[in-house]
Amino acid sequence: MNTAGTHDPVATIEALALGARAAQADLAAMPGEGRASAIRAAAAALREDSEAILAANVRDMAAAQTAGLSPALLDRLLLDDARLAGIADAVNAVADLPDPTGEVISRDVRPNGLVLERVRIPIGLIGIIYESRPNVTADAAALCVRAGNAVLLRGGSEAVHSNRAIHAAFARGLASAGVPAAAVQLVPSQDRALVGAMLGAAGLIDMIVPRGGKGLVARVQADARVPVLAHLDGMNTTYVHAAADPGKADAVVIDAKMRRTGICGAMETLLIDAAFPGAGAVLAGLMAAGCALRGDARAQAIDPRIGPAHDADWDTEYLDAVLSVAIVDGPDDAMAHIARHGSGHTDVIITEDAAVAECFLARVDSAIVMHNASSQFADGGEFGLGAEIGIATGRLHARGPVALEGLTTYKWLVRGSGQVRG
Amino acid sequence: MNTAGTHDPVATIEALALGARAAQADLAAMPGEGRASAIRAAAAALREDSEAILAANVRDMAAAQTAGLSPALLDRLLLDDARLAGIADAVNAVADLPDPTGEVISRDVRPNGLVLERVRIPIGLIGIIYESRPNVTADAAALCVRAGNAVLLRGGSEAVHSNRAIHAAFARGLASAGVPAAAVQLVPSQDRALVGAMLGAAGLIDMIVPRGGKGLVARVQADARVPVLAHLDGMNTTYVHAAADPGKADAVVIDAKMRRTGICGAMETLLIDAAFPGAGAVLAGLMAAGCALRGDARAQAIDPRIGPAHDADWDTEYLDAVLSVAIVDGPDDAMAHIARHGSGHTDVIITEDAAVAECFLARVDSAIVMHNASSQFADGGEFGLGAEIGIATGRLHARGPVALEGLTTYKWLVRGSGQVRG
Repeated sequence: MNTAGTHDPVATIEALALGARAAQADLAAMPGEGRASAIRAAAAALREDSEAILAANVRDMAAAQTAGLSPALLDRLLLDDARLAGIADAVNAVADLPDPTGEVISRDVRPNGLVLERVRIPIGLIGIIYESRPNVTADAAALCVRAGNAVLLRGGSEAVHSNRAIHAAFARGLASAGVPAAAVQLVPSQDRALVGAMLGAAGLIDMIVPRGGKGLVARVQADARVPVLAHLDGMNTTYVHAAADPGKADAVVIDAKMRRTGICGAMETLLIDAAFPGAGAVLAGLMAAGCALRGDARAQAIDPRIGPAHDADWDTEYLDAVLSVAIVDGPDDAMAHIARHGSGHTDVIITEDAAVAECFLARVDSAIVMHNASSQFADGGEFGLGAEIGIATGRLHARGPVALEGLTTYKWLVRGSGQVRG
Repeated sequence: MNTAGTHDPVATIEALALGARAAQADLAAMPGEGRASAIRAAAAALREDSEAILAANVRDMAAAQTAGLSPALLDRLLLDDARLAGIADAVNAVADLPDPTGEVISRDVRPNGLVLERVRIPIGLIGIIYESRPNVTADAAALCVRAGNAVLLRGGSEAVHSNRAIHAAFARGLASAGVPAAAVQLVPSQDRALVGAMLGAAGLIDMIVPRGGKGLVARVQADARVPVLAHLDGMNTTYVHAAADPGKADAVVIDAKMRRTGICGAMETLLIDAAFPGAGAVLAGLMAAGCALRGDARAQAIDPRIGPAHDADWDTEYLDAVLSVAIVDGPDDAMAHIARHGSGHTDVIITEDAAVAECFLARVDSAIVMHNASSQFADGGEFGLGAEIGIATGRLHARGPVALEGLTTYKWLVRGSGQVRG
């Protein structure tokens, strides 16, 4: 199916997509347990091919070091025995998730006797466009196949050898269990025009999931004619209400910021109610944990070590041990700040006042709204969904952590006995 | 809020949208019964203003006759006492539908004690772009408001006076019940650039629903940066299987084609199995009902009155008393035809063989798949959904008849007691 030799990117993607769509029809017709077995065979093949995959990764790492990639990017690219075993384990875990398809979402018998059912089915063909992490090749393929979808995988050129080796093992495993190889295809990563062709393939690719930095996601959102399940910023705010428990506030705030500073669920802005008596302790705790604070005038007045926040800080996703802090006057003030500066990802209130908490949960219009918990729980695994294909910050189709259900749609089945509308 | 006097269409739409979004926050915070009361007040205001609305419609009709609009378009534009009463009744019926928001879609308690709920909420701000039917102004506004959404209504310029009069009454009714007038706004219909500005308003308008002919829908789909709930063709096929009951086949086929030929649920292609003994009677029945038939060679051989079908016929949505007919060899042949020529709207099998029917229901990948029923049942009202905002032929978010649930999304609520991820 690989037509990378042609010079027309649209024709190349069309050929890959048509092959994938044909394979998807077979995949959708398999029982869910058959798809699970095929995914387990893919996991086994990844283990069998570990030497070849790690050798391919050595080539990618060498080229990346020569090209001067940052230590963070090199770390994302790196595979070793433990990471590869983790990838295979994650693939097996996806096989263990319940089949999301076939569920009867609703059922109704009309007065004229027509029996209506809405039944969950695969979406069809998913396109994944991602950057340096080669584990996405296996993770995303497993999730798509579990839900009965075919997938076109477009990884970054820096991971080309690793992705090819992982894909070869995965597809061989699937094929050994009767899944057509064309159900999971790697789009050649050398030709950047192929990304544009994927984004324009309306009617051929049913949904595109970009996984990577803001630049990638923004480009995909701006250019796509295909529906996109996109994750934008995680401009997450935690609001410590006047009636917050000081101990919970300290612990939740430090976890939300410092557990891992680089993930999308990390807190980026802290709002402390002027009537909360423990502000000094919360801020001192953050600084003691190694966090730099940028505050408004009232926050700065609490502790001289707090630097000034500039206008841009309230809209900056630091993804680092840096935090904006403002003192606010009550929940309305806090919710107005979130409405203005938040990105609709994950916002949190810390309070012992249940009525205030429920008002915050009802009124804050974000994908995830939490009471007395760390925003770092914003994760498909922590939500009990199994692996996630991504966290969606859009409003349609799926919101927040998106797992297998987000890779499905439905159709209406109508069973009659000769009814006419007349 | 009306800034039609400015010359920057993007700024005009931004001003309308920001006003609508602010009003939507109030609307979402109202209890569902409050929104229902406001919609009933809007229906009453439509009745109170019937003289003014009909007078406005007379102006539109006069201009449309001068402009030489077709009789079909004139009929769509026309309002009279009965039609206006029907519009008010339909608005009241929307008020009577259950509130779709607030539903707890799923609930889970995690091992760490976090309580997760997915709760149904309004989408936010909906844009409706429609053509000559002024009833859409009231219908769409009622549906959007029932689900807690604000709406920007952009009707056709030929209905400008009718739409303004309907909108004025509707908004006055809402306001009398405490809903901010900015929740339902009319976008000036004279400036075509405002449509482009609506389509580009990503982040301001959450979803656009085009309601009109193919030209309008195609333009919206091609240009929109905002998610679109689109209805494309209704290239609907009915397949009469070898084991079809001849009486049911006759009745269902005639209803599917001839009950109303101009609606999207009308049959456009008939496939008859070569092994079905009653083909001649089915085709004669269609012709007796006034339908012109265009057949492949085998269909033409059955009845000399059947004209030839050309290649384009198999992809033509006639919306008229014309039908393409082909003779096929078994279900696989029929499903291959549907996969190639269908538009994923509504496809039907007529058979008494339950196993063949279930295979067809499972394998045909359309929004609606029916067994032994007329495709003209493809309608939100017939599906028991109440009024519909449209029928969606896309695969994401909502599929088939889209009613109140399709005007909602969800958010995750997480209730904790100080949990940290650690």
